[in-house]
Amino acid sequence: MSDKRNMMNYCPEIKVVDATLRDGGLVNNFMFTDEFVSDLYKANVAAGVDYMEFGYRASKTMFNPADFGKWKFTNEEDLRAIVGTNETPMKIAIMADAGRCDYKTDILPKKDSVVDMIRVACYIHQIPLAIDMIEDAKAKGYEVTCNLMAVSKVAGDDLAKGMDMIAKSSVDCLYLVDSFGNFYPEQIANLAQKYVTAMNGKQAGFHGHNNQQLAFANTIEACRWGVNYLDVTVNGMGRGAGNCFSEQLLSFLKNPKYSTMPILQFIEKHMLKLKAEGVVWGYDIPYLLTGVMNSHPSSAIKFTKDKRTDYVQFFHELVENE
Amino acid sequence: MSDKRNMMNYCPEIKVVDATLRDGGLVNNFMFTDEFVSDLYKANVAAGVDYMEFGYRASKTMFNPADFGKWKFTNEEDLRAIVGTNETPMKIAIMADAGRCDYKTDILPKKDSVVDMIRVACYIHQIPLAIDMIEDAKAKGYEVTCNLMAVSKVAGDDLAKGMDMIAKSSVDCLYLVDSFGNFYPEQIANLAQKYVTAMNGKQAGFHGHNNQQLAFANTIEACRWGVNYLDVTVNGMGRGAGNCFSEQLLSFLKNPKYSTMPILQFIEKHMLKLKAEGVVWGYDIPYLLTGVMNSHPSSAIKFTKDKRTDYVQFFHELVENE
Repeated sequence: MSDKRNMMNYCPEIKVVDATLRDGGLVNNFMFTDEFVSDLYKANVAAGVDYMEFGYRASKTMFNPADFGKWKFTNEEDLRAIVGTNETPMKIAIMADAGRCDYKTDILPKKDSVVDMIRVACYIHQIPLAIDMIEDAKAKGYEVTCNLMAVSKVAGDDLAKGMDMIAKSSVDCLYLVDSFGNFYPEQIANLAQKYVTAMNGKQAGFHGHNNQQLAFANTIEACRWGVNYLDVTVNGMGRGAGNCFSEQLLSFLKNPKYSTMPILQFIEKHMLKLKAEGVVWGYDIPYLLTGVMNSHPSSAIKFTKDKRTDYVQFFHELVENE
Repeated sequence: MSDKRNMMNYCPEIKVVDATLRDGGLVNNFMFTDEFVSDLYKANVAAGVDYMEFGYRASKTMFNPADFGKWKFTNEEDLRAIVGTNETPMKIAIMADAGRCDYKTDILPKKDSVVDMIRVACYIHQIPLAIDMIEDAKAKGYEVTCNLMAVSKVAGDDLAKGMDMIAKSSVDCLYLVDSFGNFYPEQIANLAQKYVTAMNGKQAGFHGHNNQQLAFANTIEACRWGVNYLDVTVNGMGRGAGNCFSEQLLSFLKNPKYSTMPILQFIEKHMLKLKAEGVVWGYDIPYLLTGVMNSHPSSAIKFTKDKRTDYVQFFHELVENE
């Protein structure tokens, strides 16, 4: 497969997926104000964003709603309070996390929901469960993606086997997810081709993390090789080092329907305030180190929260726990 | 040309060039303490860095030494106060800026200097002057690079003609310089191949800016295509959005002689203090916008210095001045 996309033109099949509330919710425990969520929805519509992921639909038997903001659960009524019946071109997505949701009961038939797309997140060993979730959501009438996480930890030919199983399901799109911000663009190019080939005419997506300041570079590299569903978050807000910035990708894409301006406006009004209130995300040295080491960012998140700056000691700790 | 570099191995011909004092000096007017410079020198030696650029050798008739820190001029005696006779494997570079230095008198014969390499910086219209500077430095006994700036503004076939002229000089290495942080990796891949081909067995280098958080991605992309001289700065310290971070590139390169640890130690001791003192550099939205617009970062630097956050208004101003 050669990369044939012409940088002077655009591909209408590319879809920008805003995941600010969902991945950003991991930073602030989903404690967004209604005004924030409503303004983000309007900004995304104005910016031409194709899908907006509002949050998880987590199990209320496993997680206590008193402990989280509402977008951990993304109840139908909370969603409708923001979007009404969503009379816009932008579609609405929620994430269902394998093993952490009651999908059979909590995901309503599409006819009773304003949600358009269910994103099923799973690890490699959960693929049979994920496929059951995919078939459930598909039968209920949704578009469905599978977000296969932490593939930088998947050894041998497990990934090829897993991709093959997912491709044979009713899923519409399989996401390449760089959970630990470990991959370099050269590796993303290689993986993207494998995902696009495995999906055989169905879609592939990319969700990056910015541990090495490569989330944007990896997103546009994946895009070069035919990956069409591209995740972003406003100002890169997401767990640890965060994600590809909406404002970066929208500046790059040349489809006239996209505009960076509404996102800049939203940042002026909301994101600067969030940062001033002490909500912390984005590239920093501890995330670089967990990215390079292919480690879960939790230790770097703790390091940052503890306001430590002894990077060398942290690196030693990482090496010891490898 | 195909990219044949094996990511599991390393290429001994790759050279890491630290430009912290020179590009970082543009942030703080070269006001580094002697302890900072001495510790940076030691950290770079310990990290296996191949070249360290100490600063400019600017004209003292054009610039008043009272207005700048000493690394704007990098006098031989100031250099020797830090490095003695530099009994280390690391080589020492200084930058001579076309039109802003008295190279005939101020660049000593190599036998009288601890400097190993002269980096001649120029714009496309200054190539004949740059070639005179290159031949002068070469005749005095130095390694010489040409850092051709702002090529994202060079139209038509001027670049090809300019590269050809430089390649025919005595220069050892021609740098691809993304002064405005405008290029995407796909464009860097294309340009890198042109530079490597034009240099025909001599060396090519890359110097990036981080306006779009692509400095690291562009550096390793250039490297894939045979560019061997790779500029970095510690913590990315450089004008505006800064540069490719030393700690990113050293973590990526697999040559066993490189170590990230001494750089992390240096950051702990010095860079955090510099930032706490209010020295500002690094990715931010105004730099993204000048990068995307292929504009000089000066307006974004002013915006940041003025502590403005009206991004939308700034974008309008940029578009008006295009």
